[in-house]
Amino acid sequence: MAVVAELSSSSYTKTTRLNSSQLSLSSNHLSYLRRRAFRPITRPRNATVSCSITPNQVQAPIAVPAEEPKRKNDCYGVFCQTYDLKAEEETKSWKKFINIAVSGAAGMISNHLLFKLASGEVFGPDQPIALKLLGSERSFQALEGVAMELEDSLYPLLREVSIGIDPYEVFQDAEWALLIGAKPRGPGMERAGLLDINGQIFAEQGKALNAVASQNVKVIVVGNPCNTNALICLKNAPNIPAKNFHALTRLDENRAKCQLALKAGVFYDKVSNMTIWGNHSITQVPDFLNARINGLPVKEVIKDHKWLEEDFTEIIQKRGGVLIQKWGRSSAASTAVSIADAIKSLVTPTPEGDWFSSGVSSCPLNVICYYSQVYTNGNPYGIAEDIVFSMPCRSKGDGDYELVKDVIFDNYLLKRITKTEAELLAEKRCVAHLIGEGVAFCDLPEDTMLPGEM
Amino acid sequence: MAVVAELSSSSYTKTTRLNSSQLSLSSNHLSYLRRRAFRPITRPRNATVSCSITPNQVQAPIAVPAEEPKRKNDCYGVFCQTYDLKAEEETKSWKKFINIAVSGAAGMISNHLLFKLASGEVFGPDQPIALKLLGSERSFQALEGVAMELEDSLYPLLREVSIGIDPYEVFQDAEWALLIGAKPRGPGMERAGLLDINGQIFAEQGKALNAVASQNVKVIVVGNPCNTNALICLKNAPNIPAKNFHALTRLDENRAKCQLALKAGVFYDKVSNMTIWGNHSITQVPDFLNARINGLPVKEVIKDHKWLEEDFTEIIQKRGGVLIQKWGRSSAASTAVSIADAIKSLVTPTPEGDWFSSGVSSCPLNVICYYSQVYTNGNPYGIAEDIVFSMPCRSKGDGDYELVKDVIFDNYLLKRITKTEAELLAEKRCVAHLIGEGVAFCDLPEDTMLPGEM
Repeated sequence: MAVVAELSSSSYTKTTRLNSSQLSLSSNHLSYLRRRAFRPITRPRNATVSCSITPNQVQAPIAVPAEEPKRKNDCYGVFCQTYDLKAEEETKSWKKFINIAVSGAAGMISNHLLFKLASGEVFGPDQPIALKLLGSERSFQALEGVAMELEDSLYPLLREVSIGIDPYEVFQDAEWALLIGAKPRGPGMERAGLLDINGQIFAEQGKALNAVASQNVKVIVVGNPCNTNALICLKNAPNIPAKNFHALTRLDENRAKCQLALKAGVFYDKVSNMTIWGNHSITQVPDFLNARINGLPVKEVIKDHKWLEEDFTEIIQKRGGVLIQKWGRSSAASTAVSIADAIKSLVTPTPEGDWFSSGVSSCPLNVICYYSQVYTNGNPYGIAEDIVFSMPCRSKGDGDYELVKDVIFDNYLLKRITKTEAELLAEKRCVAHLIGEGVAFCDLPEDTMLPGEM
Repeated sequence: MAVVAELSSSSYTKTTRLNSSQLSLSSNHLSYLRRRAFRPITRPRNATVSCSITPNQVQAPIAVPAEEPKRKNDCYGVFCQTYDLKAEEETKSWKKFINIAVSGAAGMISNHLLFKLASGEVFGPDQPIALKLLGSERSFQALEGVAMELEDSLYPLLREVSIGIDPYEVFQDAEWALLIGAKPRGPGMERAGLLDINGQIFAEQGKALNAVASQNVKVIVVGNPCNTNALICLKNAPNIPAKNFHALTRLDENRAKCQLALKAGVFYDKVSNMTIWGNHSITQVPDFLNARINGLPVKEVIKDHKWLEEDFTEIIQKRGGVLIQKWGRSSAASTAVSIADAIKSLVTPTPEGDWFSSGVSSCPLNVICYYSQVYTNGNPYGIAEDIVFSMPCRSKGDGDYELVKDVIFDNYLLKRITKTEAELLAEKRCVAHLIGEGVAFCDLPEDTMLPGEM
C-alpha cells in the first residue's frame, strides 16, 4: 500500500471532496440552491449531528485551519477523515464513488442491509460508497450506534457515513434511496389511517428527493404499504423519472421460488421467471403460469395444480406471520437480502431468458408521468395506468430496466391481476390528497396487509 | 442453466450425498462409530428436528422409496432436497463443499454471521457450504425461523442447512466450528461462576468436536470468557491439534485500528500490524508499539504518547458499553463482521508485511498439547505455555497460521503483557476441574469483563 501523506491544506481537502462525491463546483452550487429553494421553512432542526472526534481526542494538525472539522459536520467519526481517494481509485481501478441514502437506518432491516452494502456484496468489490443514514429524533442515538459499528467494521469500500434526521440534508446528491422507514400501525388503526400517516412521510421524502437528490436517483420503497407509498413518492418528485421508483416485492418473489422448489423437490436455484404481480399485500399474485423449474413450465413439473391454485399463494403470504411466531420478530435478515437482490438485479445484467419482479410505474405511455423523457412504449399487459404495480422486469445492469413482453395469461391469472389492480386503484383514491388529485375517498373493502408486516 | 433431471433413485441420492459432503463410505462409517462411542448415554433427546416439507405438501415422487425423506432428518426445508451438486461443481468450478457448525445459532451475532457465510463473503464465491446450526431447547423454534429466512434468501452457495440441539449430532464432520453461544452472566454472578457455567458448556462441546468433527476442524470461540473457554475446549479435544482453536480478539483489533485512524486523521485502511495481546478482557493489550500507520510506527505518526498510553486502550474497551448505551443492544453486527474477518484471515494469504491477532495456544513447544504433530518452534515471546493468548499471526490462506517473530517489546508493553498473562493463568486455575488438572482454585482478583459484554 502506497504511503499517502496526511492531508493538511484546505485546497487539498476541497479537491478530495470533489473527487469523492463526483461533483463539480457548479453542480455543488446548484444542489445548494435547490436545497434552499425547496426546503420548508418550518422544518425542525433541533437534533444535531455530532462527530465522534472530540477536540482533545485529535492531535493538533499542522497547517489545518481551525474551522476545518466544522465544514464536514454531517459526517460520522472516522468517516470525517479526508483522504486521497483519487490516488486509491487509480491504484485499485475502483469505480466512481456513489451516494446511497437509507431511511429507517436505525431499524433492524437496515442493520442487516447497511453491512451488506458496505461489504461490496451488493454493488461489487470495486464500487466505493457513501452511506447517508436517515433516522428520527427518537432514533438518533441508535443511528450513532450504527455508525460506530460501521466504523469498527473497517470496510475499505465504505468511504463516508453521515447521519441525520432531515431528508433535505440526508438525500442530497443521493444516487440510490432505500426508503425502509415507515410508521408501524398502531392498535386499532385502519389501513386507511396507515396509508395517510405513511403517505405523508413519503410525500415529504418525495419532495426532498426531488429537491436535493441526483435527478436520476433510483428509489426502492420498502416501508408499507410500499406500492402506494412509492406512488406518493414519485408523484411528489416530478423532476425524477417515474420509472426510477420501485416498490419492493422481491421478498415475495424469493419466497415463491423457495416454495416452488420445495414442492418440486429441487434446489431453489432451479426456479426462474418468477413474477409477483400487483400489490405487496394479500392480493399479490405469485405467477406459477409463467414461472419455470429447470427451464420447464411449473405446471409441467408440479402436477398438483390444486396446490398451485389453492395453497401456493397463501403459503407465501403467511410466511412472514409464521416467522414472527417462531423467531419472535419480523424477517429483517431475509428482507435485507431481498433489498440487496433488488438492487443487484438493476446493476447486473439479467441472465438470458430470466427476469425479476419489481413494483414499478404502470404508466410509461403517459408522458405526464415523466419530466423529460419517455421510457418505453407502455406496459404491455393492459394494466391500469398511473399506479405502482409489480411486474416482470429485465435489466442491462445499468440501473434501468424494461418490462418483459413475452408472458402469457390465462383466465385464472387475469382474474387475480384484476383484483390486485382494483385494490391499488382504491388505495390511490385513499391518498388523492397526497398526489395532487383532489379530495381522498377511501373505500378499501378489507385489510389486506400481509401477516407479520406492520 | 442446464436442465438436471429430478433425482429419483436412492443410488443417485447416495452418490449425491457422498459428493456433497466430501465423505467416503468408510469415513462416514468411522464418524458414526466415533459418534456412538463418545456420546454420553444420558444426553437429552426430547427436541426433534422437523423438516418443513410435510407429506401433503410434496407431490408423490416417482420411484423414490417411501422412507427416503426420513434419511435426511437433520436437514431443514428446502435444504432437504437432494441435487446434483457434482454436475454443478464441474460447471461452475466450485471448490469442495465444507461443513460449518455454528453454536448460539438463534442469537443476534449469528443472525448476522450466517447470512455472511451463506453469501460467499467469507469463504469466497466458489465455496459451497453447509450450515449446521446448534441451538438449545428454548431457542429451537427461533432456530427454525433462522433456517426459514436462510431458505428465503436463495443463496446458491448454501447447499445444506441442518438444525439441532445436540453437539454430537450438529458437529458431525464439521470443518469449522464457530462457538458463539454462551450463557450470559446472571445478576450477582461472579466471574468465577460464569467461568464454571460456560466452562462446562465448552468442555462438552470440546468432547463433541473431538468425537464427531473433522480431525482438522478449525474452532473459533466467541462466547465469553472466550480465551479460557477456548482452552477448556481444546483440552477436551485431544484428537484435534491445539493450534486449531482460536479465541476471538478480532473485534478488539478492528476497534483499535479505527481509533488509531481517528486519532491520526487517516482512513482506517492505513493502519496495519495491529496486535491485541492476551485476554479478551480489560487486561487486553492493544499494541501501539508495533502497529503502523501508512507503514510508519504509530508513535512516529501520533505524537501524543500520553493519549496512546492512557486513553487508547480504555477507549477500545469502553466501546462496547458506549454502543449499548446508544444503540440499546450489544454490537452484534460488528462482532459478526469481526468473526468473518477472523475466518478470512485464515483462508486468504496475509498481505505482505502485515499480520492479524488471534487468541491461540501459547504452547506449541509442548508436544503434550498435540495429538500427532508439532507445529512451530514455540511461541517466540516467552509467554507462559498452555494458555490461550492473543498474539500476532500470519497465514498462507490454508486455514493454518504461524506466529510473527519480528515484533519488538519495551518495558511498558511487557508489563501489560505480564498482567494479562497472570489473569489468564488465574482463570486457568479456576477451571482446573474442567481441563483435567485437579481441583479448581479460584483467586481472580477483580472482574475484568469488558463493558457491554455478557
